[in-house]
Amino acid sequence: MCGIIGLSNVPDAARVAYLGLYALQHRGQESAGIVTVDDLGASHLARGMGLVGDIFREPDFRELDGDVGIGHARYSTAGSSVIANAQPCVANYRGGPLALAHNGNLTNAVAVKRALVAEGAIFQSSSDSEVIVHLIARSRAATPEAQIREAVSQIEGAFSLVITVGRTLYCVVDPHGFRPLVLGRLGEGIIAASETCALDLVGATLIRELGPGDFVEVIDGMVRDLPSIGRAPVSKRCVFELVYFARPDSTVFGESVDRVRRELGRRLAAEHPAPGADVVFSVPDSANMMAVGFAEVSGVKLEHGLIRNHYVGRTFINPTQALRVAKVKIKFNPVKEVIAGKSVVVVDDSLVRGTTSKGLVQMIRGAGAREVHLRLASPPITGPCHYGIDTPSRDELIAANYSIEEIAQYLGVDSLGYLSLDGMLAAAGSARTGFCHACFSGQYPIEPAGELVELATRSR
Amino acid sequence: MCGIIGLSNVPDAARVAYLGLYALQHRGQESAGIVTVDDLGASHLARGMGLVGDIFREPDFRELDGDVGIGHARYSTAGSSVIANAQPCVANYRGGPLALAHNGNLTNAVAVKRALVAEGAIFQSSSDSEVIVHLIARSRAATPEAQIREAVSQIEGAFSLVITVGRTLYCVVDPHGFRPLVLGRLGEGIIAASETCALDLVGATLIRELGPGDFVEVIDGMVRDLPSIGRAPVSKRCVFELVYFARPDSTVFGESVDRVRRELGRRLAAEHPAPGADVVFSVPDSANMMAVGFAEVSGVKLEHGLIRNHYVGRTFINPTQALRVAKVKIKFNPVKEVIAGKSVVVVDDSLVRGTTSKGLVQMIRGAGAREVHLRLASPPITGPCHYGIDTPSRDELIAANYSIEEIAQYLGVDSLGYLSLDGMLAAAGSARTGFCHACFSGQYPIEPAGELVELATRSR
Amino acid sequence: MCGIIGLSNVPDAARVAYLGLYALQHRGQESAGIVTVDDLGASHLARGMGLVGDIFREPDFRELDGDVGIGHARYSTAGSSVIANAQPCVANYRGGPLALAHNGNLTNAVAVKRALVAEGAIFQSSSDSEVIVHLIARSRAATPEAQIREAVSQIEGAFSLVITVGRTLYCVVDPHGFRPLVLGRLGEGIIAASETCALDLVGATLIRELGPGDFVEVIDGMVRDLPSIGRAPVSKRCVFELVYFARPDSTVFGESVDRVRRELGRRLAAEHPAPGADVVFSVPDSANMMAVGFAEVSGVKLEHGLIRNHYVGRTFINPTQALRVAKVKIKFNPVKEVIAGKSVVVVDDSLVRGTTSKGLVQMIRGAGAREVHLRLASPPITGPCHYGIDTPSRDELIAANYSIEEIAQYLGVDSLGYLSLDGMLAAAGSARTGFCHACFSGQYPIEPAGELVELATRSR
Amino acid sequence: MCGIIGLSNVPDAARVAYLGLYALQHRGQESAGIVTVDDLGASHLARGMGLVGDIFREPDFRELDGDVGIGHARYSTAGSSVIANAQPCVANYRGGPLALAHNGNLTNAVAVKRALVAEGAIFQSSSDSEVIVHLIARSRAATPEAQIREAVSQIEGAFSLVITVGRTLYCVVDPHGFRPLVLGRLGEGIIAASETCALDLVGATLIRELGPGDFVEVIDGMVRDLPSIGRAPVSKRCVFELVYFARPDSTVFGESVDRVRRELGRRLAAEHPAPGADVVFSVPDSANMMAVGFAEVSGVKLEHGLIRNHYVGRTFINPTQALRVAKVKIKFNPVKEVIAGKSVVVVDDSLVRGTTSKGLVQMIRGAGAREVHLRLASPPITGPCHYGIDTPSRDELIAANYSIEEIAQYLGVDSLGYLSLDGMLAAAGSARTGFCHACFSGQYPIEPAGELVELATRSR
Repeated sequence: MCGIIGLSNVPDAARVAYLGLYALQHRGQESAGIVTVDDLGASHLARGMGLVGDIFREPDFRELDGDVGIGHARYSTAGSSVIANAQPCVANYRGGPLALAHNGNLTNAVAVKRALVAEGAIFQSSSDSEVIVHLIARSRAATPEAQIREAVSQIEGAFSLVITVGRTLYCVVDPHGFRPLVLGRLGEGIIAASETCALDLVGATLIRELGPGDFVEVIDGMVRDLPSIGRAPVSKRCVFELVYFARPDSTVFGESVDRVRRELGRRLAAEHPAPGADVVFSVPDSANMMAVGFAEVSGVKLEHGLIRNHYVGRTFINPTQALRVAKVKIKFNPVKEVIAGKSVVVVDDSLVRGTTSKGLVQMIRGAGAREVHLRLASPPITGPCHYGIDTPSRDELIAANYSIEEIAQYLGVDSLGYLSLDGMLAAAGSARTGFCHACFSGQYPIEPAGELVELATRSR
Repeated sequence: MCGIIGLSNVPDAARVAYLGLYALQHRGQESAGIVTVDDLGASHLARGMGLVGDIFREPDFRELDGDVGIGHARYSTAGSSVIANAQPCVANYRGGPLALAHNGNLTNAVAVKRALVAEGAIFQSSSDSEVIVHLIARSRAATPEAQIREAVSQIEGAFSLVITVGRTLYCVVDPHGFRPLVLGRLGEGIIAASETCALDLVGATLIRELGPGDFVEVIDGMVRDLPSIGRAPVSKRCVFELVYFARPDSTVFGESVDRVRRELGRRLAAEHPAPGADVVFSVPDSANMMAVGFAEVSGVKLEHGLIRNHYVGRTFINPTQALRVAKVKIKFNPVKEVIAGKSVVVVDDSLVRGTTSKGLVQMIRGAGAREVHLRLASPPITGPCHYGIDTPSRDELIAANYSIEEIAQYLGVDSLGYLSLDGMLAAAGSARTGFCHACFSGQYPIEPAGELVELATRSR
Repeated sequence: MCGIIGLSNVPDAARVAYLGLYALQHRGQESAGIVTVDDLGASHLARGMGLVGDIFREPDFRELDGDVGIGHARYSTAGSSVIANAQPCVANYRGGPLALAHNGNLTNAVAVKRALVAEGAIFQSSSDSEVIVHLIARSRAATPEAQIREAVSQIEGAFSLVITVGRTLYCVVDPHGFRPLVLGRLGEGIIAASETCALDLVGATLIRELGPGDFVEVIDGMVRDLPSIGRAPVSKRCVFELVYFARPDSTVFGESVDRVRRELGRRLAAEHPAPGADVVFSVPDSANMMAVGFAEVSGVKLEHGLIRNHYVGRTFINPTQALRVAKVKIKFNPVKEVIAGKSVVVVDDSLVRGTTSKGLVQMIRGAGAREVHLRLASPPITGPCHYGIDTPSRDELIAANYSIEEIAQYLGVDSLGYLSLDGMLAAAGSARTGFCHACFSGQYPIEPAGELVELATRSR
Repeated sequence: MCGIIGLSNVPDAARVAYLGLYALQHRGQESAGIVTVDDLGASHLARGMGLVGDIFREPDFRELDGDVGIGHARYSTAGSSVIANAQPCVANYRGGPLALAHNGNLTNAVAVKRALVAEGAIFQSSSDSEVIVHLIARSRAATPEAQIREAVSQIEGAFSLVITVGRTLYCVVDPHGFRPLVLGRLGEGIIAASETCALDLVGATLIRELGPGDFVEVIDGMVRDLPSIGRAPVSKRCVFELVYFARPDSTVFGESVDRVRRELGRRLAAEHPAPGADVVFSVPDSANMMAVGFAEVSGVKLEHGLIRNHYVGRTFINPTQALRVAKVKIKFNPVKEVIAGKSVVVVDDSLVRGTTSKGLVQMIRGAGAREVHLRLASPPITGPCHYGIDTPSRDELIAANYSIEEIAQYLGVDSLGYLSLDGMLAAAGSARTGFCHACFSGQYPIEPAGELVELATRSR
């Protein structure tokens, strides 16, 4: 998962992109980059590993000249965390300097890459986004618009893209609209962003959200809608964006994320009440709103039972075994006064492997809880995501391998309740929107192709 | 303000100190350091600027050999943020290698330093803690215990100290007990720490909290109480530790911080209810517990109205004026669904300059609040702290210069309520404990001496 | 100009490459890189800006696994000193992982690049070496040998290449043989290097020097000669390698560099004696051997008149104008005792812009020289090099714009003597070898194509 | 050994100090530092590990404000290479900000330090120079002049000092004058430096060299001679400065270093001719001048037989044993043409452990030398230096443990000749100057006290 930003006719585009990426930091903490295009059409790139606030420095902004630009914050996925994979991707092709930032995951990247390599294409990264750049560069079409259209016709999966060719900004969303992308106005200019919270931070106003298959061209702040890509766009919005990924103060897929999460909590309480419980609290901060909704409906008293340590860094020296300090204790501390002697309801957004939750439950019991009732505001995750969420393989997904009873026993909880698929979709507003819920339901809109085993070049 | 750790007979003391400092990170983010003492009595030091998790690396722990040690996390105060001021202070004196970590602020540091300099002492830092090291080194007393006793008899103000002389650990608290220091057991060893949350993280159990004037010697994990320092210790515990500074999951001055904060919220609701309000929410995360208490007593619905950005880094590129993005927007985002059209109660722990709160109120109004009622869970701050809290000078303290009505007008709130001094002290449990509340009441237990204007040597 | 290394069947190839690059450091100080290929055919890359000894660290060698590899040390040329241009170039193409290191300069890079871009190729660097990688990747030929052959048939100019495709090492020299490349044996393995001094340092023995058009394949230390590239290789060895570039302890183009330089000095003395001079000394260290030869023939006493500062770093803080310290004084100091009151002969290898020499002459006069006679062991440089030597444009070449008399006047010397073209070639041994002497004679073996004005992407 | 600089009334003193340290870099490569004092008397410090050219950056010079200053380049000695030992030492004492840079070695540092520690002094470094700072700070004398005089009366050994107290610069040389210090004029200001080459580089003119016991005060560029320190100064100039340490273009102890080294070479040829030798060459660059002198007197042809690699960095990845590359090959390469089949005379300045020379001789033989005759332009080193030269202990000194015949056999030379003590002193001009030649003769002017075994605090 990633956060992307696109800008046209926005003075000091680099600083605005920086602020926008700051707001989208929750979508990707591995690396970040900004490309700007100046008045002459020359482009400037700065990127680095780590958090937005640590990567860019004042001198970078002096270099990053221009009122057109794109930005990208990349999610940390194991193994390929190298600068070569940091975006935006840049290239000089016959259309001039091109830059591209991609949110999502292609399902046929391997096959397309194999075909490109067979034709002599050279890849610098293991990112699937570079595939799109090659397809654009190789298109024989006459205009950048046509080149991009031809390129995206060859790829499948999830892609929300911002692209600059020279000084023109293009925004594209795949025909299923898996990932969000919104368009806003900032002064005389245009800003595209993964979520509305980025618009809020820079003071832009929302124009509209791009839907499945939408393709837009922006020149000097003037937006022109281009014909849709894909033959028949079918909405398959990622429901997990609303459940977990997006920021609660964003509006995503036409829904207030905050409102959806409260409703998830309410429906969770309705489906799985916890009669007799003394208090309900969230695993902060992702489940905060769900706990509010749960408390509303259940009448159980809302509390803060876990304190989150805000200073958990990205690097952590592992304590020796002798210390046996669970990692979960570094991240959360229980509030004994809230917990001791009580029957507590713990609300979390979802359950993946179960290891963190197991540690949390132990910690809560250690703080004296009489009973621990775990409530999850989404259904059991039974399959991986092929469209950009970094879920582990089926082997590691606890709900793909164990029954709810077994999971409850493993976690050591007195009761365990998952929100139903229908409940989740109802809360997410599916009346109006078609959602992808493959990781919960196994109904994959697009089947992925196989993995390419390639001999990597690791570089420093 | 700072966080300190002391260890004796704790294998791999450096890692334990590291974990402890991790837990105390909220007490100081400017710099951190660890000193260990190995079996031969040789000491090892590593320190750096920034967060604990960024400073120490695996190779440091290989260097930091020993089962005795102290650690320090320093608060960021403007101007003197240089590595020379990072603690622990270390020195080789005739008693051998000495290391000292200090939480608090001396009120007669200038006078003592002037006297020491007149006698030929050389200072390497502008920290007042170095004064204590000099006093120990210059004492003609025969034993480290007597040297420390003589040294602390010459200083005034707030000091909780952990000191190693060779392999012996000393813990000292000033006769007023301004700053907390607790003693715990970890296996066969002893751990001293500013707050109990550090004990919790490393898996230690609380032995007791050190009181005003307490002086303790720890050799190879064996604690020996030494006669108190100071003629007549009088408890003047810093109430602001409970109001704001300490972590809610700590027990400080015999009180659960969480419990105190809820009670502050309850009393605040009793003193300043907000009849007709639709929702109450906190300025996260410091006021979270107060909002819970407020909701309990007032019956107003508890909500999450502000989202805190967890990725706010320490360095932030200032946006140009043209962007006019308030800094407050980087840190917090309002949840429109909670706020729009509502009469809201915002609970915060305290009000210092008022600038951040003014920005928050504007933001909340911008999100559509019909009415904004600000409630502060402590009295107006009318004076600076001389004992270690980094409050600004009287000029900058809004409550020192304006009436409550004027403040309400400045902030743009519909109503403003401060908890009374009596209310705060009652919540803090003053029945049992004597508190310092000078910044609220102007009753300073010790008057500070004047400032020394010295020609600094700035070093890189 | 650059230094390159190739290795096959050499255990711990990275360390050997490192040592070899150390020996070739004089050929390029801007950046360096090493690629190794391990037993499984996976390749590993480490590269960086600066000197070989500063770039690589012990952990790099743990990463750089394998017994096959190539290395590159890049010359510092203004403007494009960025990591993106550091070599080796690496790519994953359909033949597997490919790595390439290039010494020399292509004369038709612009045209070839333009054609490649028109076909959709994407360039990551502004280096002409990347062109060759693209040509190999796009070749439809069946084998790496045929692909490389097809690729080099499309490029013109100077290129000595070491290439790995999987675990096979290829060495290629352009049909004019502008740049040197030697082949040596190291244990059971093979080492290719720009100069024999690299073989000496790692303890390898010279097998032979590769001539114009030579193409060699090395698999597991077994060398196989492939048919020559180019229709009719014509030797155009770069005479400037012998005059200036190569290390004196190398054997280049079949000649001992040391021997050639002495002979250049002898012929210089014969052509331009300095009757009445008291001492002769070199501009250290490049002209040391020439001064020895000059002294031998002229009978003038050989001396050390200039001390070179060995600690001149790459970064130097410019003194303010007020100090008016000539940069030449940072690099050289005159030995007054040798110079004062004397008529001195200063021997240098060549004269490019004349600015450094002018500073030197002033300094020597300032040290009390009665007369200064400058002798240059090569002819006037009247044109730029298109084959890899970083000479400036014609505008900046003093001998392209002024007569010898004018130059002497500008430099402030009492007499000025340049070695003749015939003299230089005779010393260089041209009886046996065809040389390129275009920068002296204007006889360019290959005319370069025009410059491509492209909109660059600058990256950090 | 170290290089020091002092400045008064020199605009932009930091840049001048930087240039001066650049010129003195040969005297110390471990660390360097600059302190300046601005118009208000505030001092500014920047220091770091490594070479002068790598430590200081443009922003440092903006910080290092002032026209008064001192600088220091520290020699690399094993074990204590830490930033804490980098000079200048700085302190705030009752006289104001004090900075001190020291060249030399105290012989009673241990005893003085022990006494200071007993009185409560705290040491931050293991450098003996800090002792002097403490003595100044503790003096009860009324003026800085008297304080410095009292301080240096308590120390023994070698010390050339530059000190600033506020804006006044003091220069002091110990009563034996072991280490050089010269005074020069630069515009309206004064510059003190270890060698005249620093004066040359910044464009200053020599006023005079400070002699044994000299004590000078400089205020705003006005020099005032103060009464000598020490009862009866007796000249014991370090002869090794002339033999090896100083730069050949400096004038040290009233002698041109270049002239002395030639004379050492001449006398060496007279004492130990090499009849029948074909060529003579130096081990570059320290013995270059000696080889010139040797050639003059012996009539043997002067040559360049060894090429020194200018890119030998300070960090070097050790090749694995399998490579068995002698370190000497990294540093020097033999010129086969000069050596092969010849009887060669190799001139070096001195012989310490013999390991490098042994490697050199092997390399020269490997290059085909028929005979190798080693000539050393100083006598056998039989004892360590206690006054600042980093000679190893007696155990490691080859001439302290073996006869000349044994040494010749160990090195593998055909003949070995050391210059006699009388010859060396005659060349050094001892008619006029009293020299210390303790490391050659065992006649130590001052006996050192014992070593203090102290428990170190190692810091990062």
